Amino acid sequence: MTKDCLFCRIVSGEEAANAVWADANYLSIMDKFPINVGHQLVLPKVHYNFLTDMTDNEVAELFGRVSMLAKVTMKALRPDGLAVGQNNGVAANQQIFHVHVHIIPRFEGDVGEGSWPRRKTMTDGELNRIAENIRREIR
Amino acid sequence: MTKDCLFCRIVSGEEAANAVWADANYLSIMDKFPINVGHQLVLPKVHYNFLTDMTDNEVAELFGRVSMLAKVTMKALRPDGLAVGQNNGVAANQQIFHVHVHIIPRFEGDVGEGSWPRRKTMTDGELNRIAENIRREIR
Repeated sequence: MTKDCLFCRIVSGEEAANAVWADANYLSIMDKFPINVGHQLVLPKVHYNFLTDMTDNEVAELFGRVSMLAKVTMKALRPDGLAVGQNNGVAANQQIFHVHVHIIPRFEGDVGEGSWPRRKTMTDGELNRIAENIRREIR
Repeated sequence: MTKDCLFCRIVSGEEAANAVWADANYLSIMDKFPINVGHQLVLPKVHYNFLTDMTDNEVAELFGRVSMLAKVTMKALRPDGLAVGQNNGVAANQQIFHVHVHIIPRFEGDVGEGSWPRRKTMTDGELNRIAENIRREIR
């Protein structure tokens, strides 16, 4: 646990987040600056800077959770598509240096190839309502 | 196996590809229109249109391989960063409807947030040399 890591502080409960789901080793939260409605981050509770710092088995476990949450997000929000992304390093636009996987619902015409919609500003209330919609589909 | 699926034809050997690595159930090939040098695709040999058609365990297995290949790519090519991406549906810019995970080396200044470098044109010879560099790091 790293004091100056936002995601470690969220894991420890020191910092608030719009949580969707958690188990013993992983959790998912709503991205505070979503690319689209339903944009979630899935992360290991243990701090790793980069995906390549995790063992192959840990990465497999992490993406098993991403898979579950991707299915649930498709059911809850019925987007036209869904992107999964994970960035490592400043050169890849990583902004928080604690491994996280983006689950991003996509909608027809939201943007062309090679770029993303602008990030949106959403209130905690809005983010929590979306989290609740997603959570409802988790069995 | 779907006759009209390019990746199924690559899996069966009917269509050539710049292969990097394969095991019983997964393989990795160089992207023919790479976003950056070293851009690879990792795919299941079995045909699935979307990630959400796979079981959570299959997705976990697939990304265990992605993890191995991401580490190997960092060693072989020493990029400044690395992005992992997986797109589902036309709305997410999926172009071949057989699940594939992009491993994309990133380099400082190659582009800003929210967009990607233009795809490059590379010859089979160039792609094979890069594949060979990556393969050399696989133990």
